[in-house]
Amino acid sequence: MPFDATILTMFPEAFPGPLGVSLIGTAWREQGLWTLETVDIRAFSKDKRGFLDDTPAGGGPGQVMRADVIAAALDSVELRGRPLLYMSARGKPLTQERVREWAKGPGLIVLCGRFEGVDQRVLDARGFEEVAVGDAVLAGGEAAALVTVEACVRLVPGVLGQAQSLSEESFEDGLLEHPQYTRPRTFEGREIPEVLLSGHHADIAKWRRSQREITTRERRPDLWAAHLANQQAKGE
Amino acid sequence: MPFDATILTMFPEAFPGPLGVSLIGTAWREQGLWTLETVDIRAFSKDKRGFLDDTPAGGGPGQVMRADVIAAALDSVELRGRPLLYMSARGKPLTQERVREWAKGPGLIVLCGRFEGVDQRVLDARGFEEVAVGDAVLAGGEAAALVTVEACVRLVPGVLGQAQSLSEESFEDGLLEHPQYTRPRTFEGREIPEVLLSGHHADIAKWRRSQREITTRERRPDLWAAHLANQQAKGE
Repeated sequence: MPFDATILTMFPEAFPGPLGVSLIGTAWREQGLWTLETVDIRAFSKDKRGFLDDTPAGGGPGQVMRADVIAAALDSVELRGRPLLYMSARGKPLTQERVREWAKGPGLIVLCGRFEGVDQRVLDARGFEEVAVGDAVLAGGEAAALVTVEACVRLVPGVLGQAQSLSEESFEDGLLEHPQYTRPRTFEGREIPEVLLSGHHADIAKWRRSQREITTRERRPDLWAAHLANQQAKGE
Repeated sequence: MPFDATILTMFPEAFPGPLGVSLIGTAWREQGLWTLETVDIRAFSKDKRGFLDDTPAGGGPGQVMRADVIAAALDSVELRGRPLLYMSARGKPLTQERVREWAKGPGLIVLCGRFEGVDQRVLDARGFEEVAVGDAVLAGGEAAALVTVEACVRLVPGVLGQAQSLSEESFEDGLLEHPQYTRPRTFEGREIPEVLLSGHHADIAKWRRSQREITTRERRPDLWAAHLANQQAKGE
């Protein structure tokens, strides 16, 4: 069963972008391990000029996407039990944990908002989950949808090939990854850390672990606090 | 002075994606308010087969992008004082605060990693700042670069037109946005909240503020805690 991504957007031409390249692109176009479908929301406008937005109830700047147009666009899609996501700065932050859940399922239906956003009633009525990608405001949901779908698709069995490489990466156990080095041995006067050239696997593993801890503590105090709490709970 | 974005990537064909559409696309192609340049890292391989990666020092799965190839790609770019970003799950999370700083500057140079990442020495030597977009692991930095550049470009004066609409949105004052509604008045039996149709501006502002607080508390306990601490510091 492939992972089927359906994107509701006013700008189908923004896709596939990064979803069309490298192993993920091949897995889609040649291997059929996942599929990408875009639905042009504009085609569901009831207005002959193609408008699908109107002024915010209660006043304020900008325009809001109409609930009835979004509903009509969604009703054109075969849902097949897929989670409905709405990319929005108002949403809960995207996490690798949610990505892993979604990647195991039948796919995703992702709504990309534009303007000041979408009429809340269609989100409530159809059960869209609001998801934010980074604490930044975008012009539309399309770039966030690319991030979300890519994060899922790379976990679909067969897409990346190397299963081993997935288990040592950032977030998989609550720590960020260790730094990486490769040839040449000297780059602009900088050496590869000695321990990595030692051939002592236990020392290398210990060094990498300590690097992961240092980086997490420095860059992600939130993850570090959760990690410490988790270790304490385990009685370590 | 336009905002100049330069992307170092193995997959220039992943761009412009969402950066090419709507007002942001017009601001680039027709108004010249910002520019987009992609640099193909592969062109800087010293290997006749175009390889630019090698096995990780110290062992482990996957491949690492070579420092010398990345350095050569970067050296082909006119830096002009632009911040250097490396999109990485190991980075500090993207925030609207950083986006605002970058948007005021001359632009960004964004390095997109692939494989297990980039040799740490070129990041250290050239002063790349590592930035993460969402707590999720991607196949490459391209989708995260799209998010980062889009977040900046929309703040460049003239790109979106309506300056007013930027001041009431999520993160601008530490709270998420209020929900939006528009016509029709009834959608599948759901009404627009009464207060928004009342015409009482003070009541509407109060209701929206309370919605922002409720949503932030529910979805972003981290932002809510910061908001409360901030209010306390102000003596509110």
